[in-house]
Amino acid sequence: MAKSIKDILKKNLGTKVNGSLWLESADGRFLGPGPIELLERIAETGSISAAAKEMKMSYKKAWELINNLNAHLATPAVIPQAGGEKGGGSVLTPEAMELISYHRELRKSFTAFLENESKKLTL
Amino acid sequence: MAKSIKDILKKNLGTKVNGSLWLESADGRFLGPGPIELLERIAETGSISAAAKEMKMSYKKAWELINNLNAHLATPAVIPQAGGEKGGGSVLTPEAMELISYHRELRKSFTAFLENESKKLTL
Repeated sequence: MAKSIKDILKKNLGTKVNGSLWLESADGRFLGPGPIELLERIAETGSISAAAKEMKMSYKKAWELINNLNAHLATPAVIPQAGGEKGGGSVLTPEAMELISYHRELRKSFTAFLENESKKLTL
Repeated sequence: MAKSIKDILKKNLGTKVNGSLWLESADGRFLGPGPIELLERIAETGSISAAAKEMKMSYKKAWELINNLNAHLATPAVIPQAGGEKGGGSVLTPEAMELISYHRELRKSFTAFLENESKKLTL
């Protein structure tokens, strides 16, 4: 009988299948763990500047992620507030909260997939 | 009713869920698209040097990938042949072929998962 993957792997290394997911259109990726974490931290801090700082990301890079995300949405996820670029804070739309919740569900399905595939490495 | 992901995304951008998978143990990743492509090209060319060249990868980097892979296997996937480092060619073991075949099946399951998740973006 041909060897299966579990016979080929060294035992007791705790080997598992892992991976990452993102949403993409023809012009590239626009939603993955990075933008989602950014939205979550904007929700917590109320500010893109503070959220970017927590992620050790430049303010410019944070706005690039947001603009790229907004460009793929029917309604923007983040709207800058009046009061100057860094001063005014930002508002997340209900769409942003829905994206966070969608990503949580997607991650849950993916975790189930990964656990199922990981089981095959040992069972 | 709360908006779902398909209401939030801009229409007609061909948005889909995509991702990548790998096998990892406590000390990190050791099998993903890169090492698998390397094994496939070694199978075709009979030589690590030629396979690395096709992938625009250094010979050193190719051996790093192979050594890292071999360290996680009960039996090595690639065995260097006599005749000098670059001269002797290399032999893939049956385990290497099984890894290639396993990865194909894994990729097939993953594609089904991604297609199912992608459908939710439009249906």
